[in-house]
Amino acid sequence: MNKGLAKRSVQIATSGPVLIVGTGLIGTSVALALRAAGVEVYLSDPSPTSLALARDMGGGTPINDAEAVSPQLVVVAAPPDVAAECIVEALVQYPSAVVTDVASVKAQIYEQVTQEASAAELRRYVGSHPMAGRARSGSSYADSDLFYGQPWVIVPHNTADPAATLLVRNLAVDLGAIPTELSPAEHDRAVAYISHVPQIVSSLLASRLLDAPEAALGLAGQGLRDTTRIAGSDPRLWTAIIAGNTEPIAAVLEDLHLDLEAMLERLQGFLEGNNGAIGMISEVITAGNRGVNRIPGKHGQAQRRWSELEVLVPDKPGELGRLFSELGDAEINIEDLTLEHSSGKPFGLAQIMVDPAHEVTAVYELEKRGWRVISGGEPK
Amino acid sequence: MNKGLAKRSVQIATSGPVLIVGTGLIGTSVALALRAAGVEVYLSDPSPTSLALARDMGGGTPINDAEAVSPQLVVVAAPPDVAAECIVEALVQYPSAVVTDVASVKAQIYEQVTQEASAAELRRYVGSHPMAGRARSGSSYADSDLFYGQPWVIVPHNTADPAATLLVRNLAVDLGAIPTELSPAEHDRAVAYISHVPQIVSSLLASRLLDAPEAALGLAGQGLRDTTRIAGSDPRLWTAIIAGNTEPIAAVLEDLHLDLEAMLERLQGFLEGNNGAIGMISEVITAGNRGVNRIPGKHGQAQRRWSELEVLVPDKPGELGRLFSELGDAEINIEDLTLEHSSGKPFGLAQIMVDPAHEVTAVYELEKRGWRVISGGEPK
Repeated sequence: MNKGLAKRSVQIATSGPVLIVGTGLIGTSVALALRAAGVEVYLSDPSPTSLALARDMGGGTPINDAEAVSPQLVVVAAPPDVAAECIVEALVQYPSAVVTDVASVKAQIYEQVTQEASAAELRRYVGSHPMAGRARSGSSYADSDLFYGQPWVIVPHNTADPAATLLVRNLAVDLGAIPTELSPAEHDRAVAYISHVPQIVSSLLASRLLDAPEAALGLAGQGLRDTTRIAGSDPRLWTAIIAGNTEPIAAVLEDLHLDLEAMLERLQGFLEGNNGAIGMISEVITAGNRGVNRIPGKHGQAQRRWSELEVLVPDKPGELGRLFSELGDAEINIEDLTLEHSSGKPFGLAQIMVDPAHEVTAVYELEKRGWRVISGGEPK
Repeated sequence: MNKGLAKRSVQIATSGPVLIVGTGLIGTSVALALRAAGVEVYLSDPSPTSLALARDMGGGTPINDAEAVSPQLVVVAAPPDVAAECIVEALVQYPSAVVTDVASVKAQIYEQVTQEASAAELRRYVGSHPMAGRARSGSSYADSDLFYGQPWVIVPHNTADPAATLLVRNLAVDLGAIPTELSPAEHDRAVAYISHVPQIVSSLLASRLLDAPEAALGLAGQGLRDTTRIAGSDPRLWTAIIAGNTEPIAAVLEDLHLDLEAMLERLQGFLEGNNGAIGMISEVITAGNRGVNRIPGKHGQAQRRWSELEVLVPDKPGELGRLFSELGDAEINIEDLTLEHSSGKPFGLAQIMVDPAHEVTAVYELEKRGWRVISGGEPK
């Protein structure tokens, strides 16, 4: 286990003690990061096993073992369907604490808290949502660096105490995240677009493969793998997320449903000899081009900003090391990379993004050392 | 440009001459591979620029510059919407040649060829489809190693001359591909599932982002990037592919449409207080889990076969090189890897798949050398 914050030796604003309610992936990661910075942390979880694991990983003291505590901040890291209940309990039980939660849905939780908490209690609640996660859940995958460099949405409401909002914002900053403020409705609409609808679409697409002939699956390439990767996500967690953000999800999904219906009509029109349908099919692909260009980072800016080299890498120990150390010798930084590697092949295909200013040099240096560069450095 | 086949010094079965009709990515890649093996190659393309580029890359002799040629094999590498016409022309013009095509749709092309060619001509036609490509099209991205280790579907029909089928199969093997036989209908149904429907779904999902608020896009993570990557594909090529495989695509897409409608009904049911709807939402995610598990390789077998380590890599030249050379020193082979790297972060996150038998050693060796391993080697 590394000690991210301790290593960074940064003065942090959160003084503690902090109580973490829910020792899953996110809760335990928050706990580890705070402990690494020397903050006093208490832990609570309905599962004794999960709680013991978080304690043994160095996440803090289980609250049952503690004397009466008076936390500065309570972080509710429970599943979305029980978060509101845990928030209200914490507001009542710790009358001087600020309470936040890290659930991936916000409006429904805020509404429940509003109904069950007093106006005074409500002032001490500020929801939040760190945009961080892993393919697998549970405290054993927790890490103090999980939030580093990721957006952390702070969701204050108009009756929140500004000091409470600041405390939650400080927590995000202390954990290395980049705080962004959105209203509960803005947050929920945003995550419907960028996370919840893509999850449902990927699941629906992957579930169609249950009907696909075996021979088809043997022909699967990177496109299918990418579009269905998140279909492997945890059903329990995702059911709670979808149930907690039903309206914004349904709104986007209904538009998608109309688009799909229009596409089916175009295909039908084409089958019936309507040649105008071709232009309309083309529009769907073009609109997809425009949509994907709106995503910042790898797909959007990156594709324009970086040059891609593709290099064949023999499948034996040390070859990738040799590749990257030789790029390092040539002082060429790798902006991004992926490795395509299928079982049974004697090599992998490394796709390396480099600064366009270094592309020609990189190709020259690699080929000089006997690497097979199969694209890059060519006329565009 | 590397000379894959020449380097491999393999005795190849294709004796040539081979005429390549269409000097795009696939046609030029076939040409380069054959030229590298010393086979005589002629080129033809309606675009003088594309033809000159393929010639200058070393792909062979433009047919207009050549004396009368008598090819052993004609490879039609034209877009799917003009492939049938080019095939029939080649069958008529070169009465002793075997003719194949490499289009990504097969039944419609075969049907057109059947209607326009004589029975004797038809015996010399065997369709095929190499499962290889790039994110970008055009001869400038061509490479002689494009097909190496990839499936190449051979699509013989029941009136094809077995010697013609063998010649096309030999071409695939000579180019390093793995030949697989499917009927035209089987092929088209397979690619609808694994390629065409994922493309349409990714395009539809990405086009929804045109309505998303700017703030949402700033929160985009890897899930959205993966599900929409192929939405960046070429609209012209994809319109022709979809128009050439409309029925199999529509069949899968109609099932997906029904699934999406059912999902919307469940969401509506949940909004109206029907708690049974929750179980049905969960079923969608679970079915997606089962579907994605059918994909061989990275998603299916690999997740079970390999252990994942996540390592923080400082964003400066040589660090990835040091990481991989140190794994190489410890004789640990990297089965697969991805690098998550967002602009503005001082490091990347390398996800490395290793043999589970080497996981503990790998973590030990990396941590000994000061790497921050943020998952892996932990209790599962």
